[in-house]
Amino acid sequence: MTPPRIVTFLTDFGLEDSYVGQMKGAALAIHPDLQLVDLGHEVPPQDVAAGAYLLETAAGVFPDGTIHVAVVDPGVGTERRGLAVQTQRQFFVAPDNGLLSRVLVRQPILKAHVLEDSRYRRLDGSSTFDGRDIFAPAAAWIARGVPIEAFGPPAGELVRLGSQHAPLRPGIDGPVPVLRVDRFGNVILDVPLASLREALGADPDEQSLLVLETPRLVVDRFRRTYAAAAGMGPFLLVNSAGYLEVAVYRGSASEALGVRAGDIVRLRAGRAVL
Amino acid sequence: MTPPRIVTFLTDFGLEDSYVGQMKGAALAIHPDLQLVDLGHEVPPQDVAAGAYLLETAAGVFPDGTIHVAVVDPGVGTERRGLAVQTQRQFFVAPDNGLLSRVLVRQPILKAHVLEDSRYRRLDGSSTFDGRDIFAPAAAWIARGVPIEAFGPPAGELVRLGSQHAPLRPGIDGPVPVLRVDRFGNVILDVPLASLREALGADPDEQSLLVLETPRLVVDRFRRTYAAAAGMGPFLLVNSAGYLEVAVYRGSASEALGVRAGDIVRLRAGRAVL
Amino acid sequence: MTPPRIVTFLTDFGLEDSYVGQMKGAALAIHPDLQLVDLGHEVPPQDVAAGAYLLETAAGVFPDGTIHVAVVDPGVGTERRGLAVQTQRQFFVAPDNGLLSRVLVRQPILKAHVLEDSRYRRLDGSSTFDGRDIFAPAAAWIARGVPIEAFGPPAGELVRLGSQHAPLRPGIDGPVPVLRVDRFGNVILDVPLASLREALGADPDEQSLLVLETPRLVVDRFRRTYAAAAGMGPFLLVNSAGYLEVAVYRGSASEALGVRAGDIVRLRAGRAVL
Repeated sequence: MTPPRIVTFLTDFGLEDSYVGQMKGAALAIHPDLQLVDLGHEVPPQDVAAGAYLLETAAGVFPDGTIHVAVVDPGVGTERRGLAVQTQRQFFVAPDNGLLSRVLVRQPILKAHVLEDSRYRRLDGSSTFDGRDIFAPAAAWIARGVPIEAFGPPAGELVRLGSQHAPLRPGIDGPVPVLRVDRFGNVILDVPLASLREALGADPDEQSLLVLETPRLVVDRFRRTYAAAAGMGPFLLVNSAGYLEVAVYRGSASEALGVRAGDIVRLRAGRAVL
Repeated sequence: MTPPRIVTFLTDFGLEDSYVGQMKGAALAIHPDLQLVDLGHEVPPQDVAAGAYLLETAAGVFPDGTIHVAVVDPGVGTERRGLAVQTQRQFFVAPDNGLLSRVLVRQPILKAHVLEDSRYRRLDGSSTFDGRDIFAPAAAWIARGVPIEAFGPPAGELVRLGSQHAPLRPGIDGPVPVLRVDRFGNVILDVPLASLREALGADPDEQSLLVLETPRLVVDRFRRTYAAAAGMGPFLLVNSAGYLEVAVYRGSASEALGVRAGDIVRLRAGRAVL
Repeated sequence: MTPPRIVTFLTDFGLEDSYVGQMKGAALAIHPDLQLVDLGHEVPPQDVAAGAYLLETAAGVFPDGTIHVAVVDPGVGTERRGLAVQTQRQFFVAPDNGLLSRVLVRQPILKAHVLEDSRYRRLDGSSTFDGRDIFAPAAAWIARGVPIEAFGPPAGELVRLGSQHAPLRPGIDGPVPVLRVDRFGNVILDVPLASLREALGADPDEQSLLVLETPRLVVDRFRRTYAAAAGMGPFLLVNSAGYLEVAVYRGSASEALGVRAGDIVRLRAGRAVL
């Protein structure tokens, strides 16, 4: 027996209204036997960059064939396009505003089409809730086997966010953006492991020359786990999504450093002087 | 193969305790193959009116046969009745306190019965958690095919909330309640599209004579989408649930107007002077 | 047809990040047809005692065979062990830090094994996210029929939390800890019904001699339901999980008493003087 198709949802709708429930209802009205999973609905309102990071961290953990619906959509009601994207592993349904930028670095695109065909939209839709009326239905139709070509014309070039995955050159000494502060106060930097390897000429470890400067503090210790830094104050590690992160064991690095998402910090990454 | 029966949950239990999980456990103990969907659990504690609005906005989006469990229940432990209601499309399980008032305007009742038969209650129940011990089990039994007549005697007249759907007369100039402020600060008024059409003699549009007054501001512009009001300040639109709403593009109408749920504002709706 | 296996999740990960979604993705990558249920993700960060209470209140409501994954894990990355536990009714996957202490009082252990075998871990795991890389996969493998012996050696003695279920002796007059304050402000004491029965020599009722003292207030009235205490101020009842609780009808006992989780209050429980 075929298991139900997995459809995930990532939005900035929050959980105090019924918007997320309405999206799921619209999907189930088309395909009642889906495996519905929340990736999260507390993306800061209209923060496409935060949504792009969260989608990247979670999508690839799901099995092949999973359909991800992501709606952080400040442009709802404008001419911005809706997308159905197929990669070698999974499907994505989202507005064309950069929300897919990060995950599509990890999963190269096979095909991307524009959501235009009104047969795959909710009939009694409004003009203000595309999540319910266009995106969730598209996911359910993909789960029913509709090929993404059927939704509309090829999308061509997609909107990409500006600064993600800025490569670090060896010995770099320069500004990097704070990508996100998570629930635990961990400060996630826009520095993926691959860039770090390039800058260091090796995997980062306790001996790496890695120095993060904020107006308040300098952090120059690297550890592999949170617990290995017990009693130590702020330290650097590579987090579970593969990004450089500042953490404090059982504390908040965000508070210790006085930084928030969007702030710029200074990172020096080079080969250790022996 | 029959898909699993869909059971939705709307409560004021919040997500920091395990109350919602317990309701789902109680349902799965009776019917392990349900499609469980959260409509939301952040209804303000014991705010039946807010719950009634949220249920109305979401229920009809789900397919026929869906079973909705709604528990906002300040009267738990009193003589207030529990209800199982069947409409032409769906099922509802809830306390008889007005929580179903709004949704039953959209879906007329076929049958309503009182939840009395102890065979359909959780055996080792308490007297303080009817959501887990009575309502969730009733939904699971409905999913297993128990007809709602089996739960108890016909319910007769149901408790209704007072002021919802107050009709607007043509040319009206009078008070209307703020029904809800959503996560984005949108101010939803207790004015459904049908009333608006009646007052205006037509569908509302950019030329409609619609004037909302609060102590702080007057709002007299109508737009069809959020994005069409970019840079404009507060404006009126019909929201995705079919209610008149005040919004600010990428901002909070609630903050701009200084109003909250339950406040009364003044609305003038009439035919435009040509 | 066999219904999908039920897997529940209780964590302190919150819902603003994608951590919970990643755990579910990791489980579905191993077994795509699970019934996934959230017990809650708002356990206060790293508060094992609160997690232990929430797990106890919810686990037993689920049907036999349910697999519960609980991750409140301040020791992630240290030598603390991961556990797979089978009771006569259900399965539990959690770090060995006392999180299972309470639920295993209600469901005696059949077998407990250490999560060691790397075949049942996520291949491309990190060293900082055992929830995704070890615990969720273990649950999915159990759902696929892997016996818990396969995960590693017998666990022997498990870590237990200190003070739970401290027995009340008849006529006791002494300190008891506040176990939890729930969303409604109900103050839950670490006094299960069984202890109360022993102290009182009978089930508690309106005539019981039960006196709770805080620096601010004395509470000496017992009621069976919230509604039976309308207009009364703070009162005692046995809550839906079987613990002694202080509540205020439509109000917050926590505010009225000025107490929080972890505070110590004084309870006198004895046989009533006739």
